[in-house]
Formats: sequence, C-alpha cells, structure tokens
Amino acid sequence: MFPFKTSIQFDRKSSQSLYLQLSNQIIKYIKNQTLAPNTKLPGSRVLAEQLNVHRKTIVACYDDLLMQGWVESIPKKGTFVLSNLPLLHQQKLDNSAVSDFKIQTGFSFYKNSVFPKKTIKKTDGFMYLNDGISDSRLTPIDEIARTYRRVSSKKNVFGHLSYGSTYGNDTLRTVLVDYLNTTRGLHINKENVLITRGSQMGIWLSSQLLLKNDDIVVVGNTNYTSADSTFLYQNAKIERVLVDENGIVTDDIEKLCKLKQIKAVYVTSHHHHPTTVTLSAKRRIHLLNLSRRYNFAIIEDDYDYDFNYNHAPILPLASHDTNGNVIYIGSICKTVAPVFRIGYLIASKEFVDEASKLRGYLDRQGDALLELTFASFIKSGDLDRHIRKVMKIYKQRRDLFCNLLKAQLGDLFEFEIPKGGMAIWVKLDSKYTWGNISKVAKKYKLEIGDWQRYDSAKLKHNCIRIGFATYNEKEIYELINRLKNTMDEIKTQTATAH
Amino acid sequence: MFPFKTSIQFDRKSSQSLYLQLSNQIIKYIKNQTLAPNTKLPGSRVLAEQLNVHRKTIVACYDDLLMQGWVESIPKKGTFVLSNLPLLHQQKLDNSAVSDFKIQTGFSFYKNSVFPKKTIKKTDGFMYLNDGISDSRLTPIDEIARTYRRVSSKKNVFGHLSYGSTYGNDTLRTVLVDYLNTTRGLHINKENVLITRGSQMGIWLSSQLLLKNDDIVVVGNTNYTSADSTFLYQNAKIERVLVDENGIVTDDIEKLCKLKQIKAVYVTSHHHHPTTVTLSAKRRIHLLNLSRRYNFAIIEDDYDYDFNYNHAPILPLASHDTNGNVIYIGSICKTVAPVFRIGYLIASKEFVDEASKLRGYLDRQGDALLELTFASFIKSGDLDRHIRKVMKIYKQRRDLFCNLLKAQLGDLFEFEIPKGGMAIWVKLDSKYTWGNISKVAKKYKLEIGDWQRYDSAKLKHNCIRIGFATYNEKEIYELINRLKNTMDEIKTQTATAH
Repeated sequence: MFPFKTSIQFDRKSSQSLYLQLSNQIIKYIKNQTLAPNTKLPGSRVLAEQLNVHRKTIVACYDDLLMQGWVESIPKKGTFVLSNLPLLHQQKLDNSAVSDFKIQTGFSFYKNSVFPKKTIKKTDGFMYLNDGISDSRLTPIDEIARTYRRVSSKKNVFGHLSYGSTYGNDTLRTVLVDYLNTTRGLHINKENVLITRGSQMGIWLSSQLLLKNDDIVVVGNTNYTSADSTFLYQNAKIERVLVDENGIVTDDIEKLCKLKQIKAVYVTSHHHHPTTVTLSAKRRIHLLNLSRRYNFAIIEDDYDYDFNYNHAPILPLASHDTNGNVIYIGSICKTVAPVFRIGYLIASKEFVDEASKLRGYLDRQGDALLELTFASFIKSGDLDRHIRKVMKIYKQRRDLFCNLLKAQLGDLFEFEIPKGGMAIWVKLDSKYTWGNISKVAKKYKLEIGDWQRYDSAKLKHNCIRIGFATYNEKEIYELINRLKNTMDEIKTQTATAH
Repeated sequence: MFPFKTSIQFDRKSSQSLYLQLSNQIIKYIKNQTLAPNTKLPGSRVLAEQLNVHRKTIVACYDDLLMQGWVESIPKKGTFVLSNLPLLHQQKLDNSAVSDFKIQTGFSFYKNSVFPKKTIKKTDGFMYLNDGISDSRLTPIDEIARTYRRVSSKKNVFGHLSYGSTYGNDTLRTVLVDYLNTTRGLHINKENVLITRGSQMGIWLSSQLLLKNDDIVVVGNTNYTSADSTFLYQNAKIERVLVDENGIVTDDIEKLCKLKQIKAVYVTSHHHHPTTVTLSAKRRIHLLNLSRRYNFAIIEDDYDYDFNYNHAPILPLASHDTNGNVIYIGSICKTVAPVFRIGYLIASKEFVDEASKLRGYLDRQGDALLELTFASFIKSGDLDRHIRKVMKIYKQRRDLFCNLLKAQLGDLFEFEIPKGGMAIWVKLDSKYTWGNISKVAKKYKLEIGDWQRYDSAKLKHNCIRIGFATYNEKEIYELINRLKNTMDEIKTQTATAH
C-alpha cells in the first residue's frame, strides 16, 4: 500500500487550497507511476484520518482527479488510478531546486543570423554612447499619466476596452490626419492611416508586404541597421548605393533601375541615418520621378522630423507624392519617449488595408487607451509645446557637445555640426581604431557600444554616430572628459610603441 | 514676371507661420515649374510690399528655401530657383478637395489570401454574436488607471521611459514566474519568460521560428482560425486530426509522426477552441511522450485557463513538461480586458532568447508602464480577486443562457453545458443552415457573424460557437428572444415551402 502519510506534504501557509495541494501531489505520483495504473485509492474517510485533514478535502481532491481524468470511480468498488494511463517520460525534476532547473529545448527551430548577437548589459557608474535618443527626464509623464487616467474614467470608455480596430483608434487616426496634413504637408484621409507601435512596426509591415526571397531593396551604403536586418529577415536582396553630403545618390539608383527590377528604396530623407545629412531637393524630385517610372515603393522613415535647429523642417517626400509611391513611416516614440509605442504608417488605402490585416496577426491591435491619450495630447497642442521646449534644450546640448568635442579632441575627431536630430557623425583619425578606443574606454567607465554596426557595408569609414540629446550639461562635460582620458591613454600607448 | 500677389494666399487664422505658408506655396510653384529653373525671385523688400507682410517673413522664407535646396543665392545678384531642378511628375492634385483625393498604389506588393476578407461593421441597435469575449463593463478600469498613474509618478520612473528590454519589463517577468509556478504548476525561471502583446503575438513568434515552407504543423479538424491563418502565412502545411469529446485525438498524431516529420502541434488543451472540450489526462501524457520521441514542439495556447465553473483549473501540459517540448502561451487580455495587450510566451531559454530578438523587429518592446501596472495588479492579489468576482457572474450568465436556449430552442439547437470558458458550441438541426439564419436574423437586429470560420476543414458539422459572457441578464433574454423570432420565421418559411 502506498504510504500517503509520509509521501504527502501540506504547506498550510500556501495560498493554494489543501485539496489542490493534495491533488497535485497525487498527480505527480500517478505520472511517474509510483501510483501505478489500477491502484485503488483509499476511501475518503480513511485518507482524511491518515493525512489529518477534513474528509471534504479528500472528496474535493478525488472529484478534481476524476474531472481531470487521472482516476476513475467504479460504483460500490471505489476510486482507481486510470487503468490505461501511459507513463510520462520526464527528466528528473528535483522540486527543492526549481530555480536551478534549466529547460533544454526539445525541438528544432530556425535561428536567424540577421539578428545582432549580443546586447550590452548596463553597469552602475558607466556612461553609454547611444545613436541619438531623447532624454527620458524631459518626458511630460505627469501630463500623460493624468490624461490616461482622464481618458480611462470617461463614461463611454467601456467601448474602448474590448477588441478594437486593427487600424488603430479612430479618434487618433482623425487627429493624425489633421496633424500630418498641417505639419508635414501631406494630402491624406483617414483611410491612409494605420496606427502602429512605432516606426519599427511600420518597417516590419512594409518589408513583409513588399519583399520576398531575392526581391531587391535599395538602401544607402551606410544605413539604419535595424532596417537592414528587417529586410534580410525576409531574405530580400539588399543593394547599397553611395550616400554623400546630399544624401543617397539617386543617379546610382537610376542606374540600378535600368539593370534590374527593384521593389523598394528605404530612405531616411530628413536626416540620413547614420550620417545625419539631408536629402537635397533635386534628389527628392529625382527619386520620386524614378519611383513613378519604375514602379517601386519608397519607404520613407521620417524618424526625426521634429528636430531641426537651424531651419524649419523639410517636408517629407510623402508631401510631394501624389502617385502613391511613398510609404511614410513616423512615430511619437522618438519625440516624446520610447516607452509610448505609437507610430503611424501612411500609404494608399489598398496598402494600408493589407498592412492592417497583417498587423492583426502580430499583436491583434494597439492600446486604445494610450492612443486616445495621445489623440488628446496632440489635439490640445501639448505635443507641439513639448517639442518646442525640448528643441531648445537639445540645441544647447548639441552646441555644448560639439564645442567641447572640437576644443578637447578636435585633432582626432572630425565632424559637421548636425542641423537637426539628436546625434553627430564622428570620423576618427585613421591612425586610431574604434575597436581600441572601445577597449580602453571601459577603464574610464565609458561604453562605446557596438561601433561595428555603423559599417555593415565594410567601407572602413572609421565613423560612428554619437547621440548628444540624452545628457545634461554636467553629463556632457563628464562624457567628453572620459573620452579625453581614453584618447590621452591611447596617444601615450601609440607614442610608446614608436 | 510671376504674379506673386495673385498666386500667393495667406491663411492668417492658420497655426502655420506666414513664412512657412509662403515657402510651401513657392515650393509648389517650383515643383510644377510655374516658377521655372533659373527664375530670379524678387528682392525681399519688393516681395514684402507686394504681399503686404513684414520683410522678415520674406527673409525667413528665402532662408528656408535655401536650406531645403529649392533656390540658390548668388552674391550681389539675388535669389534664383535652382538651375538644374528636374520637373516633378505629379498627378493633378486639387488642393481645394483634399478629402476627395484618393492615392492609388504606385507599386506592387504581396497580398495574402490567408487573411479573412471582411470585418463586420457595427450598427446601433444590433446585437452581435461573438466567440467568447469578456464583458468590458466588468473591467476594473478605475483601479488599473489609478495604478498606471501611481506607477508613472514614482521617482525612478524615468528609467522605464526609454528603450527597454525586448523580453519585457523585469519586474513583471519576476512576478509572472511566481504567479505561473503557483497557479499553473510550472517550473520556470525568469529566463523562460517573454512578455508579449497577448496570445496572438506568442502564436506569431512561435510560427515564425518553427515553420517555413511546407513544414508540418498539426491542428484539430476544428481549430482556432487565427492560429490557422498565422501558420498558413508562413506557408506551413497544416495537417488536421480529429477532435472528439476528449480533445484532439493523439493516436492520430502518432500515426502522422510515423509517416512524416512534424514540426509542431498546436493545442488549446484546457478548452479546445472552438468546441470547448478538455484534453483528457491520458492524451496529455500521450502527446507529451510523442513530442519527446519525435522532437516536435507543442504550442499550448492556454487562452482561458482562468475560467472554470465546475472544477479547479486543469494544469497545462507545460506543467508536466520537463523536456522542453512545450511553448506555453497565455495572456491577461482575455481575463481582464482585450485593450490591455499583455501576454506571455514560456519556453526554454534558448527559444525565448530567439523569440525576444525577433520581437524586437516587430514592435521593438512592450509598454513598460502598463507592464509595471499589471505586475502590481497581479502581486497585490487584485487579479485573483477580479477573476473570482467575474467567474461568479459568468457562471450565472452561462446557466441563464443555456437554460433559456434549451427551453426556447432546445428542439433546434444541441449543445453541452461547457465546464469553463465563455462560449458554448451549438449544433444546429440538420434541416436548417446557419447561412439562412444569418440572413433572417438581420431582420431582428441580430448579427450571427462569420459562421463559416468554424468549419475551415469543411466537415459540415453545422456548429458554431456562441459567447455568453458579454451579455448581462437583460441582454441574454433579449438575444435569445431575437434568435427565437428568427427561428420562428424560418420554421414558418420551411413549413410554407412544403
């Protein structure tokens, strides 16, 4: 007879009821056939006495086992472990050491080489270079959280809590039509707007709908690496063309078009990622005309439209497109804070319809409450006020950062002061390598990050992108100081070596 | 000379500054070559007088045109439209009728036949059948919005506003480990948890990593259609096996395994979607043993674990899996409200790592503030309290719905009272068709919905799934009444026809 008294343990402090604790333990013994098929379980009164619990606990447990199909009840005979239950082949799992147990994958799956290999773990006291991120401390979080709560306490809020449109919240779509037509010179209606979770979802959806095996997508010979990876994930063929001080060289795109059918061109026309240059008016018109002639899509990722320090923003390609060639992608994440995953994809109704269907299979729908929050934030003018406020601050930071970098390290680093955005494109003196800087900088608690990603085309340009917007004045001094110390040590190394 | 005075209009009520209004209009004329290349623009003083604006407005406008590259400034000569600017080939766009302008797609893209064709538009006064959705009116929205605001006003909140982990918020992952180990009998650590935007994202990620062209995935011969579509989108080959009153028939899966290599089995083991049956203990063990022997993945979609009326929830397959064969998918959306897009994918670290990387390309990351909100909601016990509260209500609704349906229409509809979930599986008398009911029901302001989706395998079972949880008592009476009126009319039709 199975020794229930010694085999069953109750945790009376647990939130799990006793009958479930008992039931789970009995199942464990049935699974490993310690309680073999056909074993008769003790009567409820007997077991209750043995285990010192109420008889109702045993009855509830047996009911549960019966419902779950582990035991069967034979009238006038009793409760038996199911006769034909197979043995579960399990690895040994020591319950006392759950936290040490590692599940090994029991099946094969596709690993994708296009994804970056590692992410950098953050250590206290370190400073991290980034490629142009806003400063979270400037987020108007109080206003946004208050609006979120206000939106959530409206009488009609229940209509927004269930399954909603895969196009995004209707109010936000309407607000965005006005906002984008006014600020970006677009000519769109609601049917042209899909609300996304940020620019990346826009790139993903476009890539899925435009590219399959070996379809050609054209990008700059320096390019935003996440876009590259997204296209490569689709097994698209990437053709890289030159980027100079006027942006991507459209003459080279024309040459390509004459040779092969291209499906799409990906551009960050406002400030090229990573080099920060603006696509010239002449090339804009050229690119639009090419897209019309050769029927390709222009994926225009306008990730930093809002940040211009020397001039008004330049209207996107999409504002000149009446031929339906441009898929215009933008987000509020970059402008307000990355945590608020709201962006948009603007295109012909036909394309938006298909993208919206596909979106339903990624994450079903967006967050209607957050979308309503931002509809209100945009409509009230709060978004514009926020942009004006942080622009002043980022301009000061750009100027300070560039002045200090020039003064302290101008002999080693070459750069243009960017007209907009949150980053500068820095060329290192050819005597030195970012690989070495990256190593030495760690001593000074400075993390350069994945500098190799800026040269996926192996041009050996020796440049990286450095964001300046995240740091306040004090932090900018500190960062340049750490970089200076790093470079001083490297100079000494080099001098000693000679 | 170009007639600036008559060609330029200012809208002084617009929020757009005058210089930008001017700049945008001049660009329009340059683009269509009304202002041809090499045209000299008037001096700023002259144009200011003509247009009756301050000279500064003209200077700002010319600066803007210069920055954007539309004009060039030749010292001592003046400002000229760029000499070599190509003509932009545009369709005519009448500015006065922006809202009537339809963009036509100017490129080709892939349309996917796996997506459902249409969505049903809602009309006031209509009642809509659904396949088992919670009642939004029971959402503890005040508590959640209050928690969201509290989370957002914490001192350290800024650390959560920027780019975060693609695995999801760390606090929520930790809370979920405890919660799932306690409630579901899992044996997981944080490394096994990926926070998703709900079950659908879990299915999407699994499908992307497991299935490529012609890889085999096994599903029930009735199945959750969104899962089917997700697999078909990957060009996977779907093999359907019988589902009976004990769930998916694992003997049939074994037969398949002996014939071909299968990559995955998709199951809704707790309550099969759509038929609501529970997978028996014997088949659970059999399926786990098969997955171990034949190295396939079990995608266990536990979409309604929380809703059981007659017994304790049945532990998922994942609770018995120590071989790393189960990918366990669940969500909080179904339990609380679909608008809160938070779910989880549980698997081996290796698989979670890869899924997390891929997730970074869909939507970059989740909403850390909402994730923190739900970490607090779960940890405080509020989620469990909410579940207990709504379970009582849904049980009453199930009983009322089933009683009324039996009493009013028991001669036409056959069904079992479901032990859990939010829907019943209803078989229609073979004399009638859902197609006809769907048509007639509209007269009585009742929308049956896409009844065909329940029979994608063309079994002609004449069943559909009807959710009961969304409606309160009064609404249940009303709904059954409309269905009764519909059926009465159909019976009369049929009688007349004979």
